[in-house]
Amino acid sequence: MFGADEIIIDTKDEHIEQNIRSVIDRFGGSFSIRSGVKARRFVKDFKGTIVHLTMYGETLENAINEIDQNNDLLIIVGAEKVPAEYYELATINVSVGNQPHSEVAALALFLDRFTSGSWMKKDFNGPVRIQPSKKGKNVQINEDIKEEGL
Amino acid sequence: MFGADEIIIDTKDEHIEQNIRSVIDRFGGSFSIRSGVKARRFVKDFKGTIVHLTMYGETLENAINEIDQNNDLLIIVGAEKVPAEYYELATINVSVGNQPHSEVAALALFLDRFTSGSWMKKDFNGPVRIQPSKKGKNVQINEDIKEEGL
Repeated sequence: MFGADEIIIDTKDEHIEQNIRSVIDRFGGSFSIRSGVKARRFVKDFKGTIVHLTMYGETLENAINEIDQNNDLLIIVGAEKVPAEYYELATINVSVGNQPHSEVAALALFLDRFTSGSWMKKDFNGPVRIQPSKKGKNVQINEDIKEEGL
Repeated sequence: MFGADEIIIDTKDEHIEQNIRSVIDRFGGSFSIRSGVKARRFVKDFKGTIVHLTMYGETLENAINEIDQNNDLLIIVGAEKVPAEYYELATINVSVGNQPHSEVAALALFLDRFTSGSWMKKDFNGPVRIQPSKKGKNVQINEDIKEEGL
């Protein structure tokens, strides 16, 4: 969703892994998830641009202009207070607003700007497809894909 | 944040009310919060455009073009499964992506598009102000405003 390829979580959480995999099985896409990954090690070994989302960071507009679109990108969001070390490990600290706000909102808006909104046009080719509708629910189930996919 | 004026929550939650008010006291702005408001009654009495965010709704792009910017706007997001009735009470059901996703992400992206990103330029004139910074934290405390505000 919103153009990300993978989510990596420090704390092991099989429930959230199953939940995300179930969504991918039904709705398609090549998104993946890993939890129980040592964050510090992972960040230090990462080859590419490291963005840390924090209300203390550089403005979103300036940051988007600076970040090389051709590099791999790691985005750090902390559910709790992020240790000071990550402010240094990051290539750039980026703020989506300079007031306290949801990390989920910040991540969505960062990805939206970084991908220039291209996530809106993406087709995941999953067995379950929803057709936009002003009222009610319009769901298509493609059984052929479903049998292959599940 | 993101251009909204008020948040109204069905379930009474004094903890979240205090939390939001504490943020407003420190960072400024005229945002307000009410919890324990009967949602069904509130939606039925609302005069203006009612947007219900759901992955089943009309595309974000089409919806933004249709919604009258001069009307008051109520945005419905459900933490749990939203009763079918709200799909009918809404002026328009709007999808921020047709796959399962965070309601918080959907709300942030909807408000961003609806306000054409103008939230990025907003100054809340609060006692605490954060200056954007690529590394570290740059916080300004304005004691004059603080004494008036607290």
